Amino acid sequence: MRLALSEARSLVESVLVTLEHTDADARIIADHLIDCELRGLQYGGLPRLVSIAERLQRTGTSREPVTVVHETPVSARLDGKDNLGYLVGYRATEIAIAKALDTGLAVVGANETWYTGMLSWFAEMAAARGLVSMSASNATAWVAPHGGTEGRFGTNPICFGFPSTGDPVIWDIGTSAIMHAEVVLAGRLGTPLPDGVAFDGDGSPTTDPAAALAGAFAPWGGHKGSGLGHVVQLLGVLAGSPPAPPVLAGFGFLIVVMKPDLMMPEAEYREMVTRYAEMVRNTRPVEGGNAVRMPFDRSAADRRARIAAGVIEVDERIHARLLELQAGR
Amino acid sequence: MRLALSEARSLVESVLVTLEHTDADARIIADHLIDCELRGLQYGGLPRLVSIAERLQRTGTSREPVTVVHETPVSARLDGKDNLGYLVGYRATEIAIAKALDTGLAVVGANETWYTGMLSWFAEMAAARGLVSMSASNATAWVAPHGGTEGRFGTNPICFGFPSTGDPVIWDIGTSAIMHAEVVLAGRLGTPLPDGVAFDGDGSPTTDPAAALAGAFAPWGGHKGSGLGHVVQLLGVLAGSPPAPPVLAGFGFLIVVMKPDLMMPEAEYREMVTRYAEMVRNTRPVEGGNAVRMPFDRSAADRRARIAAGVIEVDERIHARLLELQAGR
Repeated sequence: MRLALSEARSLVESVLVTLEHTDADARIIADHLIDCELRGLQYGGLPRLVSIAERLQRTGTSREPVTVVHETPVSARLDGKDNLGYLVGYRATEIAIAKALDTGLAVVGANETWYTGMLSWFAEMAAARGLVSMSASNATAWVAPHGGTEGRFGTNPICFGFPSTGDPVIWDIGTSAIMHAEVVLAGRLGTPLPDGVAFDGDGSPTTDPAAALAGAFAPWGGHKGSGLGHVVQLLGVLAGSPPAPPVLAGFGFLIVVMKPDLMMPEAEYREMVTRYAEMVRNTRPVEGGNAVRMPFDRSAADRRARIAAGVIEVDERIHARLLELQAGR
Repeated sequence: MRLALSEARSLVESVLVTLEHTDADARIIADHLIDCELRGLQYGGLPRLVSIAERLQRTGTSREPVTVVHETPVSARLDGKDNLGYLVGYRATEIAIAKALDTGLAVVGANETWYTGMLSWFAEMAAARGLVSMSASNATAWVAPHGGTEGRFGTNPICFGFPSTGDPVIWDIGTSAIMHAEVVLAGRLGTPLPDGVAFDGDGSPTTDPAAALAGAFAPWGGHKGSGLGHVVQLLGVLAGSPPAPPVLAGFGFLIVVMKPDLMMPEAEYREMVTRYAEMVRNTRPVEGGNAVRMPFDRSAADRRARIAAGVIEVDERIHARLLELQAGR
């Protein structure tokens, strides 16, 4: 079904308030979830809010605010206090940006969080201030390392963002063959998974979402991609996450933010990023192929189109469940 | 043919001195090239020295030392002055380590360099001091972006290193479907390339090394891997490399180094890295598969075995050419 953007937004905010978030926190989380929808990443949008509600109904909705545990001029370590990653990542990124604007370079790590969302969201915050960023977030060990059939690292996104003279260049990927939210959504909608992306609890290949959630997902990119999954796990551990976080808790988030002027004037760097991106878009395509895109091009275009249209597509079952949650059921 | 390690080492050093490197610089470069051989990355070892000689015979062997162009407490920008990347990366990493030991976090960028070697070499330097590192190096636009057939970024390695209580965990990959040095070596030895890793100058698939060098290599990992190639290119540009460096010149190198104690006591972090690595090695393998390895496990084991054996395998044509170079021909 189609839902007006304004309606989707107020529905999301009111469900979050029902789940005992403050109005300000609900706005931060809703901005993020709605942006997933605008960018065409539906599994991270309104359906994710159903998953958030299920987690909070299981573990309780009361919470303390995020706190700074340790701080230097170039760093901070935060305790996420089991707040949602959308909030913890936002707070961590705000601090990293402030410190980097001051010292040129900063790292902020946060633990005790879950569901970090799109790391590109945080990269956009940094790029909007003219900053380069690298961020990573580990998660529950849903993903098997290359050559293995048992979960050892999370779906573990990693992201780099670069300011240009127009839209930023943002590379934001998950290191599993399939995203956790995609598997959960396939389960909700009763659709099978693609071949080759998951193992069941006995280590045999499966396309059943429930079996995959009880087993492990395959890593993306063979041994190279699996290695990147380990990198993200160890960056999460650096941020205070345990080597094997429990289910939907204890995730880590780490962001490094840097002023380009440590290396060259910011305007010059923005210009170079734009020039490189244009060179890439002008690459001769493979025979019969489409124009070559830079990372984030499609997200930026999709977002503009959906904002102009003013509506998003939502599965009716998801919408019905959100209305129940809004009513406190 | 087999060559005693000590003989290989003195051959490499004397060729480098013939190419007008100081004894000290020749030692730094030889350490790196021999380590490639010890780790089983032959294309980056003695054969690479033939490529180095060809480049220097083309452009001249005289050079100025690496200089620091701009510096802050957390950063430095170096001009590599067309020195080999083995030297420029070494100097950049030394400075990054010194600054990170002082401030906790540092970034060093260098431009005007070529052939950066194994980034894991620099990650080992940092890990030996208990530091986490991220490094990247861009190169000549030999690699096509996903969906394209013209070179836009280099073979662009990226590397993360983590200290543990034993061997470090180091993930060091190239973002092209094949390494430049592998293509050059295939050309020297007259062997074809695997299918699907290269395009000729007209954009058609090719297995001919010479055609691939005149065309473009495919990226690793589809659109996700191609995006990582862009990330490395933009990090290289940040270090002062142009968006499209010329052939074997003008590469950039960037390294970020961090003290774990910004987040937690170093000993505790090392312990966690070791614990995670052990968990991964103990993953149930796929049916009929081998034990799961962590990144760097094989390199570390191969190196120990070759050091114990005291010999390396070298192609006779490469060896003969190095003897000529040693004699100044």
